[in-house]
Amino acid sequence: MKWLLNAWYQAAWSSDLGKGAGLRRTICDEPIYVFRGVSGGVSALRDRCPHRFAPLSAGQIVGDAVACGYHGLSFDGAGACVANPHGPIVERMRVRSYPVVELHEAIWVWLGDGDKADPSSIPDLSFIDDAEPAARISLYMPVRAHYQLLVDNIMDLSHADYLHPSSLGGMVTQAKATSREEKGAVIAEWIALDCPPPPAFRSRVPPGSNADIWLQVIWRPPGVMVLGTAANAPGAPRQWQDEGYTLHNVTPETSERSHYFVCSTRRYRQDDPAFVEMLRKTLLHAFDTEDKPMIELQQAEIGPHDLLELDPILLRVDAAAVRARRYLRKLIDEDVVSARAVR
Amino acid sequence: MKWLLNAWYQAAWSSDLGKGAGLRRTICDEPIYVFRGVSGGVSALRDRCPHRFAPLSAGQIVGDAVACGYHGLSFDGAGACVANPHGPIVERMRVRSYPVVELHEAIWVWLGDGDKADPSSIPDLSFIDDAEPAARISLYMPVRAHYQLLVDNIMDLSHADYLHPSSLGGMVTQAKATSREEKGAVIAEWIALDCPPPPAFRSRVPPGSNADIWLQVIWRPPGVMVLGTAANAPGAPRQWQDEGYTLHNVTPETSERSHYFVCSTRRYRQDDPAFVEMLRKTLLHAFDTEDKPMIELQQAEIGPHDLLELDPILLRVDAAAVRARRYLRKLIDEDVVSARAVR
Amino acid sequence: MKWLLNAWYQAAWSSDLGKGAGLRRTICDEPIYVFRGVSGGVSALRDRCPHRFAPLSAGQIVGDAVACGYHGLSFDGAGACVANPHGPIVERMRVRSYPVVELHEAIWVWLGDGDKADPSSIPDLSFIDDAEPAARISLYMPVRAHYQLLVDNIMDLSHADYLHPSSLGGMVTQAKATSREEKGAVIAEWIALDCPPPPAFRSRVPPGSNADIWLQVIWRPPGVMVLGTAANAPGAPRQWQDEGYTLHNVTPETSERSHYFVCSTRRYRQDDPAFVEMLRKTLLHAFDTEDKPMIELQQAEIGPHDLLELDPILLRVDAAAVRARRYLRKLIDEDVVSARAVR
Repeated sequence: MKWLLNAWYQAAWSSDLGKGAGLRRTICDEPIYVFRGVSGGVSALRDRCPHRFAPLSAGQIVGDAVACGYHGLSFDGAGACVANPHGPIVERMRVRSYPVVELHEAIWVWLGDGDKADPSSIPDLSFIDDAEPAARISLYMPVRAHYQLLVDNIMDLSHADYLHPSSLGGMVTQAKATSREEKGAVIAEWIALDCPPPPAFRSRVPPGSNADIWLQVIWRPPGVMVLGTAANAPGAPRQWQDEGYTLHNVTPETSERSHYFVCSTRRYRQDDPAFVEMLRKTLLHAFDTEDKPMIELQQAEIGPHDLLELDPILLRVDAAAVRARRYLRKLIDEDVVSARAVR
Repeated sequence: MKWLLNAWYQAAWSSDLGKGAGLRRTICDEPIYVFRGVSGGVSALRDRCPHRFAPLSAGQIVGDAVACGYHGLSFDGAGACVANPHGPIVERMRVRSYPVVELHEAIWVWLGDGDKADPSSIPDLSFIDDAEPAARISLYMPVRAHYQLLVDNIMDLSHADYLHPSSLGGMVTQAKATSREEKGAVIAEWIALDCPPPPAFRSRVPPGSNADIWLQVIWRPPGVMVLGTAANAPGAPRQWQDEGYTLHNVTPETSERSHYFVCSTRRYRQDDPAFVEMLRKTLLHAFDTEDKPMIELQQAEIGPHDLLELDPILLRVDAAAVRARRYLRKLIDEDVVSARAVR
Repeated sequence: MKWLLNAWYQAAWSSDLGKGAGLRRTICDEPIYVFRGVSGGVSALRDRCPHRFAPLSAGQIVGDAVACGYHGLSFDGAGACVANPHGPIVERMRVRSYPVVELHEAIWVWLGDGDKADPSSIPDLSFIDDAEPAARISLYMPVRAHYQLLVDNIMDLSHADYLHPSSLGGMVTQAKATSREEKGAVIAEWIALDCPPPPAFRSRVPPGSNADIWLQVIWRPPGVMVLGTAANAPGAPRQWQDEGYTLHNVTPETSERSHYFVCSTRRYRQDDPAFVEMLRKTLLHAFDTEDKPMIELQQAEIGPHDLLELDPILLRVDAAAVRARRYLRKLIDEDVVSARAVR
């Protein structure tokens, strides 16, 4: 499996890690221990003590370091050994550490060449920071599928009409759909005018009214997608406060497993806890009982292969997903070339 | 794994599929969606939408077609696309379909060359049609074992004496056993005169009486076996109404898993529901707690190998099973040759 | 995987097998049926009937033989067929049998060249025989880890300070540690004077008192370790009755699974059932919730590789474990050479 290593991957939500807490998360086949020291900073280390290969995640966080639970060697967030109860510390006693950035309520880890780890290349997700914390819905879901299948799923929202007919779907297939590549992103858009709104959109227009609906997904590699939505009474101009934005961020775990992060925000009804709760249930239900089973079945059929190499039939609705796949392929190929050139 | 593809395989019992119902069944490593449309006909399609490889079995039956549950492409029973909500239908939008025949209360699927799919090559199992429906006992049991181990099991009924001593066994080892090949079938027969009947046969002779017992298995490739039994008071001539016939039909799922179908019928006591219920329990108990565990342990020991290539000791009792294995091997080899010649 | 085949492996505790009882135990990738006939002798056979490869462990013990549960062939403890209900017995009807010795309350099996199976090469564990049966604590625990990881664990008792701080640990890191090779054994020793005793040692010195503590492990290949302990009031001479001895015996099952046998004995408080019960709980708790999870995580990280070939950092505390690994490697290499020379 070729991974895009020179990239930021979301490892967790900031709120997943209190001070002195950590979690093991495998990213691109690499087991990583992400932990927050007592000072509050977050570090990421290869989850393996270099002594006898016990996972550091089975140890204890002591201050801003982690002590291996098997024989007590301690490592700081940079991977340097800071305590060896059995003798002197030597330079070889070190664990690989990964650049970490905490931004937009998320913890991001860089797996590639440390010199290239530029935090400014993390996509701007300030819509998350701008949302009322009480109105944010943050989810984490493990999925037994290759991350590109999960990207495909969002890049082609027409699936909502078939997979989520009772909540999110109903108008996407009939909408005017476009997609384009723009500054390192792939943007897909759907506009449907004067249509019956999908059930989950009904409360955004007057009761019984049709709606003008706008959907947009901006994908940035490897798996960061921002889904914008708006629903207005037909003909009414779309305004700032009509929009909602949801992050769908897929981090590859292995070639057949992924970490799926969602953060839903909106600019309307931010102060309505019952509405937030309803939305959370709708999202979870749709994902857990509709998207996830279907995508895991797809994965079971595709196995270790690349979908596009299996010669699937491509439809118009696949345009955005295929753009994203090709763009990502190009980045991975370039990355491999540059990695070779450097070494 | 070389499979005999030019053959009819039982995929289900007719009663397993009501109108508008379907099931996924992997046969010879190939996942197949078998479904009954609302008009009542049964179809079999490769269980994979050619668009994004979602299984059709996760979709919906609409009329006599199946609509993929992911993006709504629909396919009729011949595998042709009959609806594409996203654009025109083109010839490439098609799923492999398999010839299907519904006969003898069973659904049969043909995996090989369609031109050779002659329904008249399905073995005559009219004993099933002739039996009172209320007196038929139809079972389906998945087994983690190669189908030939399950064929071996029935072709050598002597195992009943050791594996089923409290129900079906007790006289087979001592019986006069013969086997022969005849018109594409292997026939094994056991006759024991004036012997104590096995517990499950006792009600077929006067209380406390010995019995003349006749057992016969007719195997036809790949895994269709009809087991005939009769028990008479010693010396009494065997009559038509003394006989019972049971289908044991093994369909390979993968090289280490099988679908096992049983249909037990008899010409005596057909109108005795309590007797039918007792027999059903006896059969299920014998299979689930005696045959199946033993054969799965055998499989675990044999693994991916062919039993005969592991140089087992062969006994007289193996004669019929070995005949069937050799005959099947010949058919598979010929089939492969002819498949090569055709392409 | 290269195994040391010319060696005795503990297959079970004597008490695990009553008369007429048996168990299947895979040792060095070989499934073996170990059973005690009605006369009391123990035999070990390859757990596979040579007829149709059903496991003998799914059969019945009849007298001092085992009858296959599938078709009734019977084999005595030497592997010779003693009953064939279906015809004559021929020489080929035989199962591999393994030399077995019952010694020190354990059942030992030899997997290599039978001519070399000298019972006197079983390590002297007479401390087990000398202990009051009621005061012996015999345990068996299956572990998902290579046996050498379990040997490493005991050869470096410093882990107790980190993994078992509330029971067995606290003073090992600070102790004077030595190790040496001696007559085919590796001996590791730890002496700590006037130190606070670990919780599990406190009852062996006056309340509140410090202790002089002595720990010793004698390893003999492949995985037999005797752990000696003593705790005395500081300066008091160690006496015979102060010592406790525990067997830790690791038998490889496969390259990633082991059988772990423990027998704890002591010369003090042998007549105190409550103390024995407390010790049993302490041992089980330490192993099940501390050692075993950590070692299984280690195994998951190491996978099929040899730890030393993965270039771990070695500390002083690893000296004894590394000695044992190197010694064992030498034996395995020599064994392979001699096996080649013989054939």
